[in-house]
Amino acid sequence: MQSVTIRKDGRKFDETRAISIEPGFMPNADGSALVKLGGTHVICSATIETDVPRWMRGRGTGWVTAEYGMLPTSTSERVDRRRAASSGRTREIERLIGRSLRAVTDMAALGEYSITVDCDVLRADGGTRTASITGGYVALAQAVATIPANDATGAPILRDSVAAISVGIVDGQSVLDLPYEEDSRADVDMNVVMTGTGQYVEIQGTAEADPFTSSQLQQMLDLARAGCESMQRSQMSALNGII
Amino acid sequence: MQSVTIRKDGRKFDETRAISIEPGFMPNADGSALVKLGGTHVICSATIETDVPRWMRGRGTGWVTAEYGMLPTSTSERVDRRRAASSGRTREIERLIGRSLRAVTDMAALGEYSITVDCDVLRADGGTRTASITGGYVALAQAVATIPANDATGAPILRDSVAAISVGIVDGQSVLDLPYEEDSRADVDMNVVMTGTGQYVEIQGTAEADPFTSSQLQQMLDLARAGCESMQRSQMSALNGII
Amino acid sequence: MQSVTIRKDGRKFDETRAISIEPGFMPNADGSALVKLGGTHVICSATIETDVPRWMRGRGTGWVTAEYGMLPTSTSERVDRRRAASSGRTREIERLIGRSLRAVTDMAALGEYSITVDCDVLRADGGTRTASITGGYVALAQAVATIPANDATGAPILRDSVAAISVGIVDGQSVLDLPYEEDSRADVDMNVVMTGTGQYVEIQGTAEADPFTSSQLQQMLDLARAGCESMQRSQMSALNGII
Amino acid sequence: MQSVTIRKDGRKFDETRAISIEPGFMPNADGSALVKLGGTHVICSATIETDVPRWMRGRGTGWVTAEYGMLPTSTSERVDRRRAASSGRTREIERLIGRSLRAVTDMAALGEYSITVDCDVLRADGGTRTASITGGYVALAQAVATIPANDATGAPILRDSVAAISVGIVDGQSVLDLPYEEDSRADVDMNVVMTGTGQYVEIQGTAEADPFTSSQLQQMLDLARAGCESMQRSQMSALNGII
Amino acid sequence: MQSVTIRKDGRKFDETRAISIEPGFMPNADGSALVKLGGTHVICSATIETDVPRWMRGRGTGWVTAEYGMLPTSTSERVDRRRAASSGRTREIERLIGRSLRAVTDMAALGEYSITVDCDVLRADGGTRTASITGGYVALAQAVATIPANDATGAPILRDSVAAISVGIVDGQSVLDLPYEEDSRADVDMNVVMTGTGQYVEIQGTAEADPFTSSQLQQMLDLARAGCESMQRSQMSALNGII
Amino acid sequence: MQSVTIRKDGRKFDETRAISIEPGFMPNADGSALVKLGGTHVICSATIETDVPRWMRGRGTGWVTAEYGMLPTSTSERVDRRRAASSGRTREIERLIGRSLRAVTDMAALGEYSITVDCDVLRADGGTRTASITGGYVALAQAVATIPANDATGAPILRDSVAAISVGIVDGQSVLDLPYEEDSRADVDMNVVMTGTGQYVEIQGTAEADPFTSSQLQQMLDLARAGCESMQRSQMSALNGII
Repeated sequence: MQSVTIRKDGRKFDETRAISIEPGFMPNADGSALVKLGGTHVICSATIETDVPRWMRGRGTGWVTAEYGMLPTSTSERVDRRRAASSGRTREIERLIGRSLRAVTDMAALGEYSITVDCDVLRADGGTRTASITGGYVALAQAVATIPANDATGAPILRDSVAAISVGIVDGQSVLDLPYEEDSRADVDMNVVMTGTGQYVEIQGTAEADPFTSSQLQQMLDLARAGCESMQRSQMSALNGII
Repeated sequence: MQSVTIRKDGRKFDETRAISIEPGFMPNADGSALVKLGGTHVICSATIETDVPRWMRGRGTGWVTAEYGMLPTSTSERVDRRRAASSGRTREIERLIGRSLRAVTDMAALGEYSITVDCDVLRADGGTRTASITGGYVALAQAVATIPANDATGAPILRDSVAAISVGIVDGQSVLDLPYEEDSRADVDMNVVMTGTGQYVEIQGTAEADPFTSSQLQQMLDLARAGCESMQRSQMSALNGII
Repeated sequence: MQSVTIRKDGRKFDETRAISIEPGFMPNADGSALVKLGGTHVICSATIETDVPRWMRGRGTGWVTAEYGMLPTSTSERVDRRRAASSGRTREIERLIGRSLRAVTDMAALGEYSITVDCDVLRADGGTRTASITGGYVALAQAVATIPANDATGAPILRDSVAAISVGIVDGQSVLDLPYEEDSRADVDMNVVMTGTGQYVEIQGTAEADPFTSSQLQQMLDLARAGCESMQRSQMSALNGII
Repeated sequence: MQSVTIRKDGRKFDETRAISIEPGFMPNADGSALVKLGGTHVICSATIETDVPRWMRGRGTGWVTAEYGMLPTSTSERVDRRRAASSGRTREIERLIGRSLRAVTDMAALGEYSITVDCDVLRADGGTRTASITGGYVALAQAVATIPANDATGAPILRDSVAAISVGIVDGQSVLDLPYEEDSRADVDMNVVMTGTGQYVEIQGTAEADPFTSSQLQQMLDLARAGCESMQRSQMSALNGII
Repeated sequence: MQSVTIRKDGRKFDETRAISIEPGFMPNADGSALVKLGGTHVICSATIETDVPRWMRGRGTGWVTAEYGMLPTSTSERVDRRRAASSGRTREIERLIGRSLRAVTDMAALGEYSITVDCDVLRADGGTRTASITGGYVALAQAVATIPANDATGAPILRDSVAAISVGIVDGQSVLDLPYEEDSRADVDMNVVMTGTGQYVEIQGTAEADPFTSSQLQQMLDLARAGCESMQRSQMSALNGII
Repeated sequence: MQSVTIRKDGRKFDETRAISIEPGFMPNADGSALVKLGGTHVICSATIETDVPRWMRGRGTGWVTAEYGMLPTSTSERVDRRRAASSGRTREIERLIGRSLRAVTDMAALGEYSITVDCDVLRADGGTRTASITGGYVALAQAVATIPANDATGAPILRDSVAAISVGIVDGQSVLDLPYEEDSRADVDMNVVMTGTGQYVEIQGTAEADPFTSSQLQQMLDLARAGCESMQRSQMSALNGII
């Protein structure tokens, strides 16, 4: 049975940090949100372009992609902005966010539009990539609401919502929503992306130190499901009255 | 004589936009400020490193440098983050900010520390480089206050304060603090950097379309002096009680 | 219940492709293997350097990293070698292989050695990253066997073995070890990395089209466990008599 | 009152170095000049292309741009040619030269031609960017003379001439046309670009060490005006009989 | 007179190493070969694209180009894959291979096709560039055989065959086909590319240490002629029955 | 027998263009020369650094390397300066010049100095790489004369002189010293580098269109020998009284 130790920040093992989503934070973007998950703050902005990459032209379908950046002083150790922009870690995060957002987008209903979702980290305290997905969905939904209906398909552009949270094993115990302090010493780190209807979009679990068992995996997946549901409630609340 | 037409945003020719400076905006930085000059918002952060570039080692003197970036959706047309980071315009702005901050820093009193001042534009509506200098000084002053006194020189690290503002000629009239709407159609665009004691650190005036006369130059310099004094009052107010 | 349809290549849903591992394929490397998993052929080579990255020096611990490349004509559409080398996909694969190999390496027992495992794809028919992990372990084990025992720890350098396999959902059915033909039309694609003692090192599951349910996840994990066990038998057989 | 000290090279504070402009120095260019300003020698060449950048096509207007380079042994310390080509300083100089030449060019009268003015420094002894502007105008004028008249506008392509000179404060005194020996220890360094009709195109003044006062600024501007007039006489003499 | 010392690998001065050419080694390529020249193993693959570089379009003629790479552990000292890909040596080898293959190709008979010949070194023991030419021709010939006849010219696409071998001066003696052990201490290193009809396509001789005389040059050219004839016999044998 | 047709520029088949070498052209360099070979003008400069590349330190031996560039308007079609600097052709030329100069340098006698020879083309009319070698030797010799004698070896730093010339086959005839007009339509292009004592340092012959026979090769080598001797007389005359 899972014990109920208190974490350094006072949370129980199955609690997320405080979440807030402020939509429309970037007035020049077609959709945007400032998402705050505890000490992690990310600006998400969606920009619509009336064109698609060359290899997609003429198919009548659209594309969604993501870019990710960190302000140099978003972390306790200053990040070199040019080295970070071309790093493997950055590209990997951008690919994860892009795939997650595409998983709930009907590209035929979107039509020949490209949407870029920029996720820029103001403060990093663990979970920046999952917060980017959660906030990126809000920016995307706000942007998509400005695109006229595509009569050719009649389908909504967004088939579902999508949110994400991190889980992991710290001090031998499965925990939800790891801040940097836990993440840096976790045995296992896992990011889970789920749709609003409770299905998996992406699972990325990594044993940083010790491998993990099937039952530990099950505990983490259960925590992640509850965490994603919590994120989705914040998304709905942020989008309420906006789209 | 200078006429007193009202500008599109209602200001007189000799008025700056509303200025606010929020110090300590980036908790991981050694000094920081969010500066808002009308619709232009810039995050300035100073990071101290206990080392200097290799070519300076062993001299006992320090160095101050600046980096500049724009969030992709800070402008009405999305900025390509990787192309912008390596553009000539970005490097030119970084060099201007760095020179301006170094002009008021006593490198011997600083000792062998490197300070990097990051200026990241959240929203761009004209004057991002001058706002970066004004806010960068606040971040620098806050950071410098954490460095122990250098007994070898006994001198203060910052000899003076520094601030900046833009002036220009729009519709044939000299105006102070141009927003993007004016900047994009100005005949002349000039950035003026001044110390708190009223001396020039940098003057960069460019005739985008029509060259300008000596008397127009004098009008612009007069406006800039008043504008810099206004910026300096905001700086002092932001630093009051902090350092 | 899982049905037992025959796949295009004649395999049952729970069968891997033929696996062969030829150790010592690259005579200049400290350890190497040519791994063939059906139509996917990868050369894995391990090189030992008697140094570690600068940030690790003086700790007495080592490091293992991986690099990944594809011959231009390894795929049906020629790969641009310079663009591929710097792509986000390549870096992401390199990071996955490196993490997987590090998960079974005792860095203190290794001592201050760096080991680079190069994985170069001769032919790509799906599953190149999992074949790289499976073959990379054989190259690593062969190389590690040439390092003299580290008396300071007395522990073996490799705590366990590691292997990997892909699973996915194709035509609504969970299947093991997807060739390119299935991978390119799969609804879900998942790579699972496991130790020889049956624990998880890495789980990376992605819904390319439709999200997946908990029960589909469980089916895929069960297939992956059996697949990894099969890979481990080939690894042991390849290393038998060599180390 | 301004004192009349003799400088190290024997000049008075208000004297330029010897100037010579040899037009047509590069026979493959559409216009060219070798400009020698004391020990600073710059080759300027203008190349006309019958196309404009993509974003300008179809407007019927042209474009003028500049590139700048230094031979590796043009300075006393050898310049790394690849590092210099991508440096911020180089891009900043290129942008200054380009803006200065565009300020006197009527883009509609030019029509859809692109002109690139290359400025390559053979010997650098201070003032390379201002010599590049002065010589670049001669190359541009020679090239423009080969373009057939644009009947649509009837206007001349070049509305005015343009020249430039450096001024500064050395040993507390305002001086004209600084060689490297003065430039390297100047308190203030200012480049002034003026039209043949005596208006300002660009003013770039920088306090390298000590800020400067309004009256020092006025002294420098007066010196620069006389210096630019001297440069313009050399330009006219070089172009006499050529265009 | 040329003495008949035995070399370290037992060969006479005028013997090549064992040569084998396995055509069709890369099933995804339009033509391919694995060439083994002693301890040097190179995979050559030809890919046909139905387009030519932009500057050639509309002329009705084709193009042949080559790319060259080394697996990191192909040599005794591991090669950095990213540094090697952009090195001057790599580009120089690519240009040599490309020129050699183009010298026997009738570009008008080819028509508007581009053929890229990739040469990837599995094991490097001297002579990788000449082995790449010898194997590259086999790959090219196999690929060209799949292109339908060009009725406009009626000429064969390949006018002749082409092969290459290295010669050099080691210990004062002219020798044929140098392995790495000889190449690394040779006084002179020369690569000779010849057509099947015995004419020169390329001669590249370099005195690494001591310059060489006319008579030494003649000895090396005689050895190279015999070596190229030997390579051509292997090429014909490999292509026999294939094209 | 070789016929004696007159070439377009009036030369016989066995005549070089007018050669002039002006030593000391770049006063900041340790050695320099402006070499003019007909319409090809190249500035060669040698810079001595009192250090060697890291991999050579502690051996007591030096290094000579070369860099090559072209002014953008040195050719009839403007050269893109940034693309040219990183092109394969540029690197190949730099490697050729460097090897040629090293072939006559005694690295032990040089001691731990690095010499960089920069070759910058002012005007290109064929033969820029051979003119660079011929002029580069003069710059190198002038620089080397400033290095104090190395008592440890007692040997001269330069064992011999080195010069180069181009030969080729144009209109079926072997010719010496090809200008661009001939080079661009030559069947064969060959560069020959020889020492002052008449030995070969480098032979690079390429059949651009038709392969060449042994007797054509011999004709070209004979022409090249005479051409190199002519270059050497100019070198000696330029260095006379200088070193």
